[in-house]
Amino acid sequence: MRAARLHGNKDIRVDSIPEPEVGLGEVKLKIGWCGICGSDLHEYLEGPITSPKTPHPTTGEMVPIVMGHEFSGTIVAVGKGVDPNAYPVGKKVVVFVSRKGGGLSEYISVDVKCVHLLPDHISLEIGACIEPLSVAWYAVKRANFKPEDKCLVIGSGPIGLFVVKVLKARGCKWVAVSEPATARRENSLKFGADAAYDPRSVDVVSEIKKQTNGLGVDISFECAGSAPGLDSAIAATKARGTIMNVAMWGSRPNVNMMNIFYGERILTSICCYVGVHPEVIEAVADGRLSGVDQLITSRISLEDVVKDGIEKLITDKDNQIKILVRPGPPNSKI
Amino acid sequence: MRAARLHGNKDIRVDSIPEPEVGLGEVKLKIGWCGICGSDLHEYLEGPITSPKTPHPTTGEMVPIVMGHEFSGTIVAVGKGVDPNAYPVGKKVVVFVSRKGGGLSEYISVDVKCVHLLPDHISLEIGACIEPLSVAWYAVKRANFKPEDKCLVIGSGPIGLFVVKVLKARGCKWVAVSEPATARRENSLKFGADAAYDPRSVDVVSEIKKQTNGLGVDISFECAGSAPGLDSAIAATKARGTIMNVAMWGSRPNVNMMNIFYGERILTSICCYVGVHPEVIEAVADGRLSGVDQLITSRISLEDVVKDGIEKLITDKDNQIKILVRPGPPNSKI
Ligand SMILES: [Zn+2]
Ligand SMILES: [Zn+2]
Repeated sequence: MRAARLHGNKDIRVDSIPEPEVGLGEVKLKIGWCGICGSDLHEYLEGPITSPKTPHPTTGEMVPIVMGHEFSGTIVAVGKGVDPNAYPVGKKVVVFVSRKGGGLSEYISVDVKCVHLLPDHISLEIGACIEPLSVAWYAVKRANFKPEDKCLVIGSGPIGLFVVKVLKARGCKWVAVSEPATARRENSLKFGADAAYDPRSVDVVSEIKKQTNGLGVDISFECAGSAPGLDSAIAATKARGTIMNVAMWGSRPNVNMMNIFYGERILTSICCYVGVHPEVIEAVADGRLSGVDQLITSRISLEDVVKDGIEKLITDKDNQIKILVRPGPPNSKI
Repeated sequence: MRAARLHGNKDIRVDSIPEPEVGLGEVKLKIGWCGICGSDLHEYLEGPITSPKTPHPTTGEMVPIVMGHEFSGTIVAVGKGVDPNAYPVGKKVVVFVSRKGGGLSEYISVDVKCVHLLPDHISLEIGACIEPLSVAWYAVKRANFKPEDKCLVIGSGPIGLFVVKVLKARGCKWVAVSEPATARRENSLKFGADAAYDPRSVDVVSEIKKQTNGLGVDISFECAGSAPGLDSAIAATKARGTIMNVAMWGSRPNVNMMNIFYGERILTSICCYVGVHPEVIEAVADGRLSGVDQLITSRISLEDVVKDGIEKLITDKDNQIKILVRPGPPNSKI
C-alpha cells in the first residue's frame, strides 16, 4: 500500500509498504481522510522531533515512519478477540491514538480500545476533524468553562479557530480573538468570535477591560505560542481567572510573574486530550457543533501531501485552516 | 509618639508624630511587637515602591509614611460604634490590614473590622507572627494541600520556613527544601523539613523524582523568586500538580512553557491572604502550629530598626528569620 513517511528533516516520501495485518484485539481500517496538524509541520521543518530515530521501546517503530494522527476510516477487517457485531466491517470510525502506523496511508490496524464508532450520518471528512476538535474541546473543558464565561483567544490559526468553534458550541456568549493576520482575524469572526482585534493597532488588554467592566475575561486561551500573546493573555484575564495554554513553545517566554502574582491568576496547559472523543462525536452528531466542514479549506490526494499540504500550510498559512488528505488510490475521485 | 517612617530611598527615621485619635468604628492599639518583612526591605532598598509619593486617593497618606504591617497590640481606647464588651480595653489583638499608620509606632488606630482578638495565652510576640504565618497558611490552602501530598519548597528564607512550618502543622508527611545557603538549609531541617538539598551540588529534580516513585511532588512552593528555582519547581512537580508562587519577582523569568504543557501543570500564585487569620490564630491556640517563637531570631527596640533590623536582615540574612521590633519607650525592658 502507499504511505507518506517521514525519512528525515524536510524529507517526506510516498512509499510502497506492506499492508498491515490485523492482530489480536485490533481492527483494520481503510483510511478515509487524514488531516495535517501543526505538529506535522514541526516534524517536517525541524524534525524528526517526536518520531523515534532509534527503535521505540514499545512499538519498535523508528524513522522512516508513517505520518498522520487526525484520521477517520472504515473497518475492513476485525481481529481475534474483537466482537464483529460491535465493530462491523463497513462501519465508520475515528481513532483516539494509534501506537503504530499513521493516517497518511491506505490502511492501518489499531487496537480496538482506541476506536470510536461514528454515527452513520457523520461523514468521514468530519470524522477526520474529530481529533483537532477534541484538543479544543479538552482545553475548554480543563479550563472549567461555563457558558457565562467571557473568553479571549490569542491567535486564530487552526487551533484558535477550533477553540472559538467549541466555545460557541458550548454556549459561550462572548469570545474575543487577538490575531495580527487579517485573513485569520476575519475567519475568527466567520466562525463565531464576537470581537476580533489586531494587536498591532489595538491595545487588546484595555479593549478587553472595556468589554468586561474593567475585570478582564474569565478564561484566556493562548493558541499562538508567542511571548507578547502570553503577556496579553495574562494581563487580560480577571483575578483568579485561568490562562489556558494550547500552544507548543519553541522557546522560553519571559513571563510576567508579577501579573500571575497580582490577581492570583492560574496559568496552565493542556498537552493533548483525554477521554473527550465521545463527547465531541455526540456534539457533532446532535448538531451543537455544526459547520465543521467550513474549517476544511483543502482536500488533496496523498501524492500531493508535501506540495499542496505541508508546503501550502506554510506559504498560505493565513488562509488555510484544515487540509485533509485522502490516502485512497491515486487519481481516484477526491 | 515615636514612629519609624520611610522618608525616601534608604531613609528611615524615628520621628516624633502626633498620637492618632480613635475614630468612629475604630479601636486604638498600643503596639506590642512589629515584625520586619521582606517587602519592608524592598521599600528601604529600592523604594518608595508601594508607599505613595503623592497623597493616596482614599487615605490621603504619602511619604513620610509609618512602616510595618506585621504587628500585635493591646486595645487602649474604643471608638464610637464599637462594642467595648466585644473589644475591651486591655485585650490583645492582631490586625488584618491597616489602611493608615503602621506597626513601627507606639500607637495606631484601626478599623475594628480589621482586628482579630488573640486568646489570652498567646503572647504579643507570637501575635506579631500571625501575619507572615497567614501568608504561608493561605499559600498552602490555595494550593489545595492535603496531608498525603508530598511537597517541595524552593528557598528557605523567612517565607519558605513559614511555609514548611505550616505544612507540618497541617499534617504534611514529606516536605523537601531546596536552598543553597547552608544556615537556611539547616534551619529548614530544624523547622520540620524531611529533606533539604543544596541545588549547587545536588540535582534537586532527580532527587525529588527518586523520593516520589518518579512522579514528582504534588505541590511545589516557589519562595525564592529565582528563575532556576522556578525551573526546578516546575520540573519537580507531578503531572497536573501545582506550582504555587509565594515570591515577589524583580524581573521576568524565562519560563519553560513546555514543562507546563507536558504534564498539564498548574502555575499559580498567592498575592497576600484573605480570611485566614482566624484559622491561623486557632491553629496556634490549640497547639497544631507550635514552636513559632523559634522563628524569632532577634528582638530589638524602635531606635535600632535600621541598624539591628533592616541592615541585619541584609548582612546576616542567612541566619535571621523574623526580627521583631518593640516600639515601646526607649530603654524600656524588651
Ligand atoms: Zn494534532
Ligand atoms: Zn509582610
